[in-house]
Amino acid sequence: MPSFLILNGPNLNLLGTRQPEVYGATTLADIEAMCRARGADLGIGIDFHQSNHEGQLIDWVHAARGRHSGIVLNAGAYTHTSVALMDALSSVEVPVAEVHLSNIHRREPFRHHSYISKVAVGMICGFGAYGYVLAIEALRDNLNLPD
Amino acid sequence: MPSFLILNGPNLNLLGTRQPEVYGATTLADIEAMCRARGADLGIGIDFHQSNHEGQLIDWVHAARGRHSGIVLNAGAYTHTSVALMDALSSVEVPVAEVHLSNIHRREPFRHHSYISKVAVGMICGFGAYGYVLAIEALRDNLNLPD
Amino acid sequence: MPSFLILNGPNLNLLGTRQPEVYGATTLADIEAMCRARGADLGIGIDFHQSNHEGQLIDWVHAARGRHSGIVLNAGAYTHTSVALMDALSSVEVPVAEVHLSNIHRREPFRHHSYISKVAVGMICGFGAYGYVLAIEALRDNLNLPD
Amino acid sequence: MPSFLILNGPNLNLLGTRQPEVYGATTLADIEAMCRARGADLGIGIDFHQSNHEGQLIDWVHAARGRHSGIVLNAGAYTHTSVALMDALSSVEVPVAEVHLSNIHRREPFRHHSYISKVAVGMICGFGAYGYVLAIEALRDNLNLPD
Amino acid sequence: MPSFLILNGPNLNLLGTRQPEVYGATTLADIEAMCRARGADLGIGIDFHQSNHEGQLIDWVHAARGRHSGIVLNAGAYTHTSVALMDALSSVEVPVAEVHLSNIHRREPFRHHSYISKVAVGMICGFGAYGYVLAIEALRDNLNLPD
Amino acid sequence: MPSFLILNGPNLNLLGTRQPEVYGATTLADIEAMCRARGADLGIGIDFHQSNHEGQLIDWVHAARGRHSGIVLNAGAYTHTSVALMDALSSVEVPVAEVHLSNIHRREPFRHHSYISKVAVGMICGFGAYGYVLAIEALRDNLNLPD
Amino acid sequence: MPSFLILNGPNLNLLGTRQPEVYGATTLADIEAMCRARGADLGIGIDFHQSNHEGQLIDWVHAARGRHSGIVLNAGAYTHTSVALMDALSSVEVPVAEVHLSNIHRREPFRHHSYISKVAVGMICGFGAYGYVLAIEALRDNLNLPD
Amino acid sequence: MPSFLILNGPNLNLLGTRQPEVYGATTLADIEAMCRARGADLGIGIDFHQSNHEGQLIDWVHAARGRHSGIVLNAGAYTHTSVALMDALSSVEVPVAEVHLSNIHRREPFRHHSYISKVAVGMICGFGAYGYVLAIEALRDNLNLPD
Amino acid sequence: MPSFLILNGPNLNLLGTRQPEVYGATTLADIEAMCRARGADLGIGIDFHQSNHEGQLIDWVHAARGRHSGIVLNAGAYTHTSVALMDALSSVEVPVAEVHLSNIHRREPFRHHSYISKVAVGMICGFGAYGYVLAIEALRDNLNLPD
Amino acid sequence: MPSFLILNGPNLNLLGTRQPEVYGATTLADIEAMCRARGADLGIGIDFHQSNHEGQLIDWVHAARGRHSGIVLNAGAYTHTSVALMDALSSVEVPVAEVHLSNIHRREPFRHHSYISKVAVGMICGFGAYGYVLAIEALRDNLNLPD
Amino acid sequence: MPSFLILNGPNLNLLGTRQPEVYGATTLADIEAMCRARGADLGIGIDFHQSNHEGQLIDWVHAARGRHSGIVLNAGAYTHTSVALMDALSSVEVPVAEVHLSNIHRREPFRHHSYISKVAVGMICGFGAYGYVLAIEALRDNLNLPD
Amino acid sequence: MPSFLILNGPNLNLLGTRQPEVYGATTLADIEAMCRARGADLGIGIDFHQSNHEGQLIDWVHAARGRHSGIVLNAGAYTHTSVALMDALSSVEVPVAEVHLSNIHRREPFRHHSYISKVAVGMICGFGAYGYVLAIEALRDNLNLPD
Repeated sequence: MPSFLILNGPNLNLLGTRQPEVYGATTLADIEAMCRARGADLGIGIDFHQSNHEGQLIDWVHAARGRHSGIVLNAGAYTHTSVALMDALSSVEVPVAEVHLSNIHRREPFRHHSYISKVAVGMICGFGAYGYVLAIEALRDNLNLPD
Repeated sequence: MPSFLILNGPNLNLLGTRQPEVYGATTLADIEAMCRARGADLGIGIDFHQSNHEGQLIDWVHAARGRHSGIVLNAGAYTHTSVALMDALSSVEVPVAEVHLSNIHRREPFRHHSYISKVAVGMICGFGAYGYVLAIEALRDNLNLPD
Repeated sequence: MPSFLILNGPNLNLLGTRQPEVYGATTLADIEAMCRARGADLGIGIDFHQSNHEGQLIDWVHAARGRHSGIVLNAGAYTHTSVALMDALSSVEVPVAEVHLSNIHRREPFRHHSYISKVAVGMICGFGAYGYVLAIEALRDNLNLPD
Repeated sequence: MPSFLILNGPNLNLLGTRQPEVYGATTLADIEAMCRARGADLGIGIDFHQSNHEGQLIDWVHAARGRHSGIVLNAGAYTHTSVALMDALSSVEVPVAEVHLSNIHRREPFRHHSYISKVAVGMICGFGAYGYVLAIEALRDNLNLPD
Repeated sequence: MPSFLILNGPNLNLLGTRQPEVYGATTLADIEAMCRARGADLGIGIDFHQSNHEGQLIDWVHAARGRHSGIVLNAGAYTHTSVALMDALSSVEVPVAEVHLSNIHRREPFRHHSYISKVAVGMICGFGAYGYVLAIEALRDNLNLPD
Repeated sequence: MPSFLILNGPNLNLLGTRQPEVYGATTLADIEAMCRARGADLGIGIDFHQSNHEGQLIDWVHAARGRHSGIVLNAGAYTHTSVALMDALSSVEVPVAEVHLSNIHRREPFRHHSYISKVAVGMICGFGAYGYVLAIEALRDNLNLPD
Repeated sequence: MPSFLILNGPNLNLLGTRQPEVYGATTLADIEAMCRARGADLGIGIDFHQSNHEGQLIDWVHAARGRHSGIVLNAGAYTHTSVALMDALSSVEVPVAEVHLSNIHRREPFRHHSYISKVAVGMICGFGAYGYVLAIEALRDNLNLPD
Repeated sequence: MPSFLILNGPNLNLLGTRQPEVYGATTLADIEAMCRARGADLGIGIDFHQSNHEGQLIDWVHAARGRHSGIVLNAGAYTHTSVALMDALSSVEVPVAEVHLSNIHRREPFRHHSYISKVAVGMICGFGAYGYVLAIEALRDNLNLPD
Repeated sequence: MPSFLILNGPNLNLLGTRQPEVYGATTLADIEAMCRARGADLGIGIDFHQSNHEGQLIDWVHAARGRHSGIVLNAGAYTHTSVALMDALSSVEVPVAEVHLSNIHRREPFRHHSYISKVAVGMICGFGAYGYVLAIEALRDNLNLPD
Repeated sequence: MPSFLILNGPNLNLLGTRQPEVYGATTLADIEAMCRARGADLGIGIDFHQSNHEGQLIDWVHAARGRHSGIVLNAGAYTHTSVALMDALSSVEVPVAEVHLSNIHRREPFRHHSYISKVAVGMICGFGAYGYVLAIEALRDNLNLPD
Repeated sequence: MPSFLILNGPNLNLLGTRQPEVYGATTLADIEAMCRARGADLGIGIDFHQSNHEGQLIDWVHAARGRHSGIVLNAGAYTHTSVALMDALSSVEVPVAEVHLSNIHRREPFRHHSYISKVAVGMICGFGAYGYVLAIEALRDNLNLPD
Repeated sequence: MPSFLILNGPNLNLLGTRQPEVYGATTLADIEAMCRARGADLGIGIDFHQSNHEGQLIDWVHAARGRHSGIVLNAGAYTHTSVALMDALSSVEVPVAEVHLSNIHRREPFRHHSYISKVAVGMICGFGAYGYVLAIEALRDNLNLPD
């Protein structure tokens, strides 16, 4: 059975409590449940992690090689600053779908640039927690996995 | 029955013949068929148009007011240059999902900026023709329409 | 009898419905009526048009040559992007008064620059619909037409 | 009876002698006379001052609070450099009409930016001395004073 | 018999009347005649069009595919702003020779950049109407058509 | 007995009336009283001035040499524009503590840069009127004056 | 009893040994002692930590929620690069006082910008170790805690 | 007898006491004496003033019209910020020689730009107090006054 | 008989061996032969030189004055860096046609700017060696020499 | 016996598997072996580490003080983003040789800037794994250790 | 007897024939004569050279070491581009006076920057050929040579 | 026997006399001797040249083709300005090792950019004269020449 690695970056553990006018009231556990449900529907295993440590996220990406068919990544603030995470993604040859809860192009200018985009298949942003579900579907389609 | 307006900007009429290494071999008619199929599944009407004329796209956006529940927009090259189209979208108070076939953040720098993003709920890019289907689902979720 | 051409660019047909906190509730028809009234007072004929098409606005500017004594232009969003409209105005040798309903210098940075200003006698902005009336008076004074 | 404060910044005392190809031959006394005449027509008192000293202009702005209904300001070169004058205007809560004799957008790039615009209702530029008269009318309309 | 499509962008219909110190007194009809004469000499058919509408120019470019051997394009002001026209040219796989009457590198800075150049074989500028004739010869040589 | 010169720049005379959501309701007289009280506690004389005139502030700085042990300076808007005031401070060899009522790094970008910082020992900003008291304590510590 | 969390970023563990001409000879233990002493005077508990790991600092910030009344933060070099730390601070709704030993505005240009400032109540810099004491007093005043 | 106006801007009254490693130990009175001596040699009257007030310098420039044959100006820090002083100089039609004691091109970047240069005949910098003498000679030569 | 000076800058002596995918296999001797042939057809003498030394190119330009009717210049890499060569061309009052083998606007950004363009009648680029022939024809037309 | 600390930053653990066209097929273990061999030849002890965690690298740098004679550092992507690592290196007063496998000046623009260079003795890049050996020799020479 | 080396860069050999509205009708031989005359008055030997070759100018600068007391340099266009000439000047430890015939700050922006200024004692510009005489006097004063 | 061409650019002939705090006391003859010694050890012939003339350096590069196995280049100041030298290197298809005595990334910003790096295998900087020896070894390794 194919499986996807879903990684969440800094501060996403606070989801549902932090700036709900931007991110909504959904918690990260809610998102994990949504992802697992859709994965079950589609016959795709789901590995779901969060860390505030850039190095930890890089370690998880390295470990994905040969183990997961795709990566769904919401890198949070590291999206805009981490060349190291970008390099990690480009080294493991696993397709990446970039997700953001908010539409990053409508926020502060320093959030408009994404290092992740340079190595991702595509990006989905602005559709809240549902964006994770869309990303799973998008990767499935991109990998030509059965519907 | 709710309906979505799906608008396509300049050069998208050539889809399937132009730079297939960037956009794939799917034609705009194929995309229209995919959208209509998914719309039928979801009970959402689909209006589908393409034009190379910026003014024509603006006219269609104006006409969407009170008639459509949402707009899926692939503005093509006008994404990067048309303040007028952005203003039209912001004036009609209909939620917009921005779509791009390719991941615009991996192409030339002048394609990284989108005026459409300033007024769209969210953006989906890089997932080819399937991005239109994802956008329909995203708008449906955003509007709390029944699944 | 001298006459003025009053041209309105993209989205101004929606006036009165769109972002009233920025532009007010006056419609374009209201503005046309105000302009015709003041024109009648001053013995100046008024031609009044609107289009969302850049090419159409250019065609009207070309046609103004030898037919109108002045042009009052609210180019809307084309103010900030249309080198072609600027070139058209510079080619017909008819004095231009640039008008904006809102104070464009207080809005987004990309609205601070105007190509129209490069070829206009002057600009009036921020005084709402009354700015059109001021522009008619300004052009009349600039042309030394009788009061 | 309502009254307007009309303030003129550095070098405007030389008007009529300096670069007439840019500003025309009208003197500041001529402009004051035009303003007083139109003020008399409209039942609006006119206070008219000029100074080359930034601090003096700020003092006059402070004193306008509770005493004048509006300010017509041609800040001359301080338009482009004085954050302090902008702050003064924003603090007194009196509507401001910004005036420039020449079209500042057609002159050197450092004259395109105006700190005054950030706090003014609107701007009128390029229509010479007549711009002061237009500004008085514009403020009158903005304040809903009787015609 | 091979044929070339010669396209002219906004304001070029006014040629001969507009800023003759920049563009000379030759009209667009004169240029068409020069092109037809040279085409006849070389055994190359000439299609010659002008429009002020960006969308119209794009439509003509699309139609050139499989019908013309080359395109001579003077895009006027759209040279500097139209990503859409550039995309159209890159999609039809017909070689393009870019022409400008004036030397655009000696004019305002915003005229130094050309989107057309990104997809054209080469550029000829500054040699007035004769530049069209040079462009026909250049394309003929580029296509290895008989002299 | 050591004494500190406390200087206040343009518009600070309006304190307590202007934009209270940014600066609070405290008046400049209140701040003077707070400073005199803390000065009395610490055995430090306090000279307290305000002017809207850049030249006046420079004259006061010059006069501080050999007369005061330190300068507490809230230069208001001149913070961002006055090279001359910076030069005056660097010439008198008296330590300077820079104060701002609001956190200037959270306001408009042109308020993020301070010429005063180039020659000040340190800066305190964002803590309202209490920042003056902190600055007196900071200078006292910096000068190793007795507690 | 209220308590403050005092966090120190990368390299601050070396204080007193590193570039004493910039930071002085005081060690971090000295600073901790000064803070505890002042905290004891004011009836405020002090939690004091240092880490070179960005993720660790974020974790401590998260844990401060509901446990501390304020945060004094010297983020060291992460001040200039960590969007993630800024996001963490903005999410926990605890007031932050930013401290720097040196006047960062007088050092290299890349140290002039602070992400922390975007979410801090205020900043104190340039007053050495004494700045921590000032920050404790500033937060106490800001929180209206008893003197 | 022709006469020159020699104007000195902010902080130059402190000369000889301020940063002698940059400006030398010569006082402004010494420079005045040198200028008067050279003026006497050449049969040129010398008016010599200093002010820290931008407005005062502008007033003196205005008064020079028709009274002095040339202006030697060391505008100090206003060199880099005063558009108003530049405008004053351009309005009085008296040739200006710009002087700086230090080589401004070797100091901080913001001192490299001079508004005065835009309207001065020439600039002399880096030769200390002797630069004033050179400027007098340069103006004399420029005006074709007898040696 | 009129004559043209054809100058070639650094590295063009290697033509035919260097990066043939950019410049083609034609040697500089081939180009000289093409130019001489076309010159013979048109009754125009051809002087043809190459140097890697900027100073040598300037010396040749100086010597062209009064001796040649026009200059065809491919300045190679000096196109982008040599203000001195631009100045030399502007001083000799001989019309210049700028040529480049490749389309410089499609290469690295530092090759998009040309100092030569500031003083040339026009530019021809992207048409390989045939561009020299076009330049000879363009200059002939520009000088109204007989066909 | 002197010893060198050799530190490797993020993703270098993947060496030999990642983008071999950029970095070659050599693994990090191969490099460690090469370094140990050369160290043995030269009588220099070698400590060799890798981490994906920025904080870990900083901790190792701190620990080098007084223990190692030099540091060879390949900071990977942290080269371009880590002010904290630069500060750590500058604090320990051990000479640093910066190494990169690829020539970073030929890669993406954001890889051209190195914070490490600001505090390193020198840089060696583009010579693949052999660059580590060169760096050991360079540090040995720099420290005047016996050959 | 002290002697000065006077060096002239590219195109200055054409002086008196080139753009006389910018540089005047004086030839380089005239300037040499003026310099020799003033040198004779002051007891200073004069070596006077011109070259269009950057390398030649560098060679002359190298040779000045230990042979000349000062260098008067008009580097022409190399002023703006030659880091190598700047380095040569900084290496020979002979004081340099930079001269320009025109006021370079009033010409094209790329002429505002001077590499020579970074290593020159001072600059004199805008006073035409007389600037060389002023530079000789300035260097004499700077070197404390007898009057 | 393989041989390397070692080229030195402007001002390097002065080595040992110029700014020894930056470059050390070693002369160019010392460096040549070091290179010849190491070449002899490795069985590699050494050609060693220096010139202040950009064109001369280009001529030597051209002549290296087919004659030398590698080029060691210290282009001095031409590193930062010479596109022509970069083009020469790219045309001869001989591997290049770039050397700088000082760490150019720690000097003035205009020395951080190198055109040579765009075409060199790698760069070695900051290790003084020993960098030439390292470059010889690096090229030998790069060319797989026997040790």
